[in-house]
Amino acid sequence: MQKEFKCSELAELVNGKASSDNIVVDNISSLDSATASSISFLSDVSYIPRLSKTKSKVILIKKDDLRYWDKDYILVKNPYLAFSKIATLFSDLDKKMNTGIHESVIIGQSTKLDENNSIRPYSVIGDNCLLGKNIQIGSSVSIGNNVSIGNNSVIHSNVSIEDNVKIGDNCILFSGARIGTDGFGYAPDDNGGWSKIPQTGGVIIEDNVDIGANTTIDCGAIDNTIIKAGVKIDNLVHIAHNCIIGENTIIAAMAGLAGSSKIGKNCMIGGGARIGPNISIADKTVITPTTAIARSIKKAGQRVTGVMPPLKHKDWLKFAVKFMIKKGMK
Amino acid sequence: MQKEFKCSELAELVNGKASSDNIVVDNISSLDSATASSISFLSDVSYIPRLSKTKSKVILIKKDDLRYWDKDYILVKNPYLAFSKIATLFSDLDKKMNTGIHESVIIGQSTKLDENNSIRPYSVIGDNCLLGKNIQIGSSVSIGNNVSIGNNSVIHSNVSIEDNVKIGDNCILFSGARIGTDGFGYAPDDNGGWSKIPQTGGVIIEDNVDIGANTTIDCGAIDNTIIKAGVKIDNLVHIAHNCIIGENTIIAAMAGLAGSSKIGKNCMIGGGARIGPNISIADKTVITPTTAIARSIKKAGQRVTGVMPPLKHKDWLKFAVKFMIKKGMK
Amino acid sequence: MQKEFKCSELAELVNGKASSDNIVVDNISSLDSATASSISFLSDVSYIPRLSKTKSKVILIKKDDLRYWDKDYILVKNPYLAFSKIATLFSDLDKKMNTGIHESVIIGQSTKLDENNSIRPYSVIGDNCLLGKNIQIGSSVSIGNNVSIGNNSVIHSNVSIEDNVKIGDNCILFSGARIGTDGFGYAPDDNGGWSKIPQTGGVIIEDNVDIGANTTIDCGAIDNTIIKAGVKIDNLVHIAHNCIIGENTIIAAMAGLAGSSKIGKNCMIGGGARIGPNISIADKTVITPTTAIARSIKKAGQRVTGVMPPLKHKDWLKFAVKFMIKKGMK
Repeated sequence: MQKEFKCSELAELVNGKASSDNIVVDNISSLDSATASSISFLSDVSYIPRLSKTKSKVILIKKDDLRYWDKDYILVKNPYLAFSKIATLFSDLDKKMNTGIHESVIIGQSTKLDENNSIRPYSVIGDNCLLGKNIQIGSSVSIGNNVSIGNNSVIHSNVSIEDNVKIGDNCILFSGARIGTDGFGYAPDDNGGWSKIPQTGGVIIEDNVDIGANTTIDCGAIDNTIIKAGVKIDNLVHIAHNCIIGENTIIAAMAGLAGSSKIGKNCMIGGGARIGPNISIADKTVITPTTAIARSIKKAGQRVTGVMPPLKHKDWLKFAVKFMIKKGMK
Repeated sequence: MQKEFKCSELAELVNGKASSDNIVVDNISSLDSATASSISFLSDVSYIPRLSKTKSKVILIKKDDLRYWDKDYILVKNPYLAFSKIATLFSDLDKKMNTGIHESVIIGQSTKLDENNSIRPYSVIGDNCLLGKNIQIGSSVSIGNNVSIGNNSVIHSNVSIEDNVKIGDNCILFSGARIGTDGFGYAPDDNGGWSKIPQTGGVIIEDNVDIGANTTIDCGAIDNTIIKAGVKIDNLVHIAHNCIIGENTIIAAMAGLAGSSKIGKNCMIGGGARIGPNISIADKTVITPTTAIARSIKKAGQRVTGVMPPLKHKDWLKFAVKFMIKKGMK
Repeated sequence: MQKEFKCSELAELVNGKASSDNIVVDNISSLDSATASSISFLSDVSYIPRLSKTKSKVILIKKDDLRYWDKDYILVKNPYLAFSKIATLFSDLDKKMNTGIHESVIIGQSTKLDENNSIRPYSVIGDNCLLGKNIQIGSSVSIGNNVSIGNNSVIHSNVSIEDNVKIGDNCILFSGARIGTDGFGYAPDDNGGWSKIPQTGGVIIEDNVDIGANTTIDCGAIDNTIIKAGVKIDNLVHIAHNCIIGENTIIAAMAGLAGSSKIGKNCMIGGGARIGPNISIADKTVITPTTAIARSIKKAGQRVTGVMPPLKHKDWLKFAVKFMIKKGMK
């Protein structure tokens, strides 16, 4: 397998311009850990001091920063994006080959799949499923009935996908993700107990969506829960029934969305943030980590924060006592 | 299978009174998505404007709201509860038939179970277990030794149940739930390290308990962790060792209970709320989502909130700087 | 199997001094649940009133407290630590015997392991792995390529370990833990979308580390994520890519660490606490549960708190309205 590339090849991949076409590199790395055969990148001015010490002989750089660098380069608009593309190129070369469908995999009735998919041992696929091409499925995955999975998607080990889930092309579900489990819906009965409301909707996950490890996405109560194209979700996130997440929104670890919340496009939801039920969040909203949102945000592009600042514990105690006395609670 | 019901049959199920016994419906839906053969429901005054547009020919309604509706109906005390019961009726008709015990399932010594249970492939059950009737177990489930599971309970895929767990009748454990893993107990040793304290208690889950996807419930240190009848727990919740949760308490996603906390009956714990260790919470307490509780709540029926209100980020920054300077921390 | 011990044997184990060598006990329990053949312990002055009622005939006690007790004892410096050691002794006697490697376990090429390990059914181990002695692996575990696991480590059911993870001796991974899944790294592209950055680092878990149920630890982006010796991590914790956790730090349930955070030695991170990206936390820092940290803490040994105190809901509403009006947000 090719493991070396000329700068001319890499420049073409990232839509850039190489200072010298024939320089050959065989890995991509940070400025600090570069070797003489690395390509590296300058993505932020804070890394400029490291340029004088790096062993890299060629870097991805933007025009304005060229004055800090006197060796070879590939000129690009967005060095970090170019880095991600070249790193993906090198990374894909190391990927496992197609391993086929292991003989222990159990496949239900009327399910259609390509024999060239990779499905690892002890996974179970239900009835009436439709799987695309070039799909990888890890071991001990459980897939229910009426599930579709698009081309090039990857389902890691120990994932559960319940009935009536549609997954698009180029998606990644990391290990332990739970997709399409029942939404949390109960009607109070007359004796203080709860009567479960059947959750009969599905989940639609569009193309290019990543879903983190041990994240849970519930099915809709009647209609579907919808994750639109390009959404990236980190680990241990909870998406309740009937949420709709707009295109390219990114949700960091441990954030939680209550039922029927509707998030716009291109939002950034910080780690541990909470969105209340039936909330609408406008496009391009940035929610600071751990902030709790209980009212809709209508104006696009705002950054919203609600975090209790940390104090030395003894100072916090004084504040807490005073705050609570003022409000009459002890 | 019957998929049509007369209003007289449905009225009997929900303890209601039909305006006309012989009208036939074949599905239940919201007012908005109803067809001419749907039964629908009016559970909240905010939905009254939708009555004029619904295609439903019969709705579940309470006496006070009849003045807003001039077509057929079933009169009930609690339309939402009636909806949940009729929806369950329709939903159960779609459920999978008994699939039996898959030949790959491994069952330990002295374990007793009904051959009519459904157990899907690659699940493993330990020694000395006792399983009731009409149980469904998904694929890749791990069940330890000395576990009992009551009638009609459902264990979804990829669940782990450790040794010495008792599960009652009519319970649902959603995929990825971990029941009976060791509590987090360590004694500091003399070198700054930690000596693990064996966690030898079990977990008791009474009847009619639902446990969400990827939720964790630890076993007790010496005594048991106890989840009482009718408790409903959402996804990604953590219940530490020796907690006791009272009857019919409902716990939303991502809430966390530290060790030995004791929650009363009929409480509502909001999403992402935290309860400190050794805390007692009185019956019928309502804890707002994301609120952290570090002291016991003794008076029943209170609603308690501790959430930092969100601001525009630049306003929050001013607040944070001022707040922290005032308290002497920088 | 021996289930009775003389006080002389136990005193030797805990480096203590028995009042009478030949008394025999057959279990360890709390003061309250002790029987006449129990050994018990006094670890806190708050338990002194229970001494007069316990049925225990011998207790673990420290010198200063001897005046409260007139029966037999084992004198130790740290009764709670001594309890943990004796409890472990009794607990280990109950442990399952070696069950060998189940015939359904799939083991990749060039993987080396001891035939005396216990590996339960339907687990899958990749290529080029190296497993030590006396290892226990539960059912439906997925282990990738190039993984090493040290002696005496225990991997519970349904755990996923991705490629390039090193686990030391005497570690415990509880069920559903996900180790080495991709870090959450994306570069913004020119169309509002995200380009995934390959995560090519590994995870190093040193000796004596416990990792809780459904906890996730991501692999590094280029360098490794590192969990140092003696670290104890509870359930549903998230550790992002390239974090480094110092020796003997303890992290309670549902805490979350963003990328590249660096935690010192002997820290205590409370349940639900959040540490922002690129933060350094000094040794011996104590972070109160649910506190969010967005700036580095440089001075060792501080206790830091940022928790919104809870109020009666109607009082909180008044506060929230006033607070938000003052800051100009409605």
